[in-house]
Amino acid sequence: MDGSTLDRLYAVIQSRRGADPATSYTARLLGEGTAGIAQKLGEEAVETVIAALAGDRLVEESADLLYHLLVLWADRGVVPSAVWQALERRSGTSGLAEKAARGKAKP
Amino acid sequence: MDGSTLDRLYAVIQSRRGADPATSYTARLLGEGTAGIAQKLGEEAVETVIAALAGDRLVEESADLLYHLLVLWADRGVVPSAVWQALERRSGTSGLAEKAARGKAKP
Amino acid sequence: MDGSTLDRLYAVIQSRRGADPATSYTARLLGEGTAGIAQKLGEEAVETVIAALAGDRLVEESADLLYHLLVLWADRGVVPSAVWQALERRSGTSGLAEKAARGKAKP
Amino acid sequence: MDGSTLDRLYAVIQSRRGADPATSYTARLLGEGTAGIAQKLGEEAVETVIAALAGDRLVEESADLLYHLLVLWADRGVVPSAVWQALERRSGTSGLAEKAARGKAKP
Repeated sequence: MDGSTLDRLYAVIQSRRGADPATSYTARLLGEGTAGIAQKLGEEAVETVIAALAGDRLVEESADLLYHLLVLWADRGVVPSAVWQALERRSGTSGLAEKAARGKAKP
Repeated sequence: MDGSTLDRLYAVIQSRRGADPATSYTARLLGEGTAGIAQKLGEEAVETVIAALAGDRLVEESADLLYHLLVLWADRGVVPSAVWQALERRSGTSGLAEKAARGKAKP
Repeated sequence: MDGSTLDRLYAVIQSRRGADPATSYTARLLGEGTAGIAQKLGEEAVETVIAALAGDRLVEESADLLYHLLVLWADRGVVPSAVWQALERRSGTSGLAEKAARGKAKP
Repeated sequence: MDGSTLDRLYAVIQSRRGADPATSYTARLLGEGTAGIAQKLGEEAVETVIAALAGDRLVEESADLLYHLLVLWADRGVVPSAVWQALERRSGTSGLAEKAARGKAKP
């Protein structure tokens, strides 16, 4: 099992569009629109921060965070491969992290 | 290219442990410890929220968010496969999202 | 009416300690402990960010954020006057903002 | 000293509009626009969450959070008294927290 789990999960999320919100949490979430999904992503990020500091539940909270990130991508029309490419571009010869640091426009 | 990019990137991050913080952003970030890395993750999540609402830069901000999440996993000893398994468990017969909803213990 | 509303509200929050969680949201929130209250603060901050970008509900979300910040102070034993003093110290002759900028240790 | 410190600080922030960004952090921050200020508010909220969990710096991080919240209000044309009124409305006979709970529309 590897990170391609995320690609499969994204396909599942896409397939839930138009499903019954009463039985599909994904359909309900997609129905909330960008602001509602982004709010949930923010909440999951805070849970991940707290889990990391508390020293437990980081695996589960990370899974929640990733799921909501994928739903946000689906909402905004972002395909996972575009993000993988963005990550690959940065991890070239000089190393992902270094390029990430240079490429960042901090507000 | 698929989500296994994240597994390769995680390996790169692990290989930067102990590298020179002056030349490796990853080494510098790992040197900040859990609170510092979690802080960065939170900042990237806010940038992702704002990018989603503004309708641009969501790909780039998502890549930044994922990179910092992987660094947090490295810091806390979480291996990516544990998170992929957590995601797979939830996407069984009744659907990932539904199980995610039921499985959540909200604070 | 001025910001001393916050001092009065803090006193109300303190008075709810030990109240029945079934009828007092404050008592219930205090019962969740630091991680639970901090989680709620983070959620309200995300709502405030989104409200600011969406151009509505900023007054209401700011009120929610402040209420949860006061509960976090009550949980951690921080008295409001300590925060007002911290703000005053920075707003001396050269200006709050400038001192705030210099005084910050970013992670 | 009481929460009216925030009203005075808000007036100082307003007076910095148009000041030289090279010498005034407030002027620089206001120049970044809503998204930039909201990003900073989000970062300060994460720092506050971490400070609360770590058991230190909560006073200082709270002061930073409040300062950036006031700048966001100034950017969006929100006057502090509108927020104090929103807080007062909720703290009527049945108690702030209870009304806060009922009045919240969670996404």
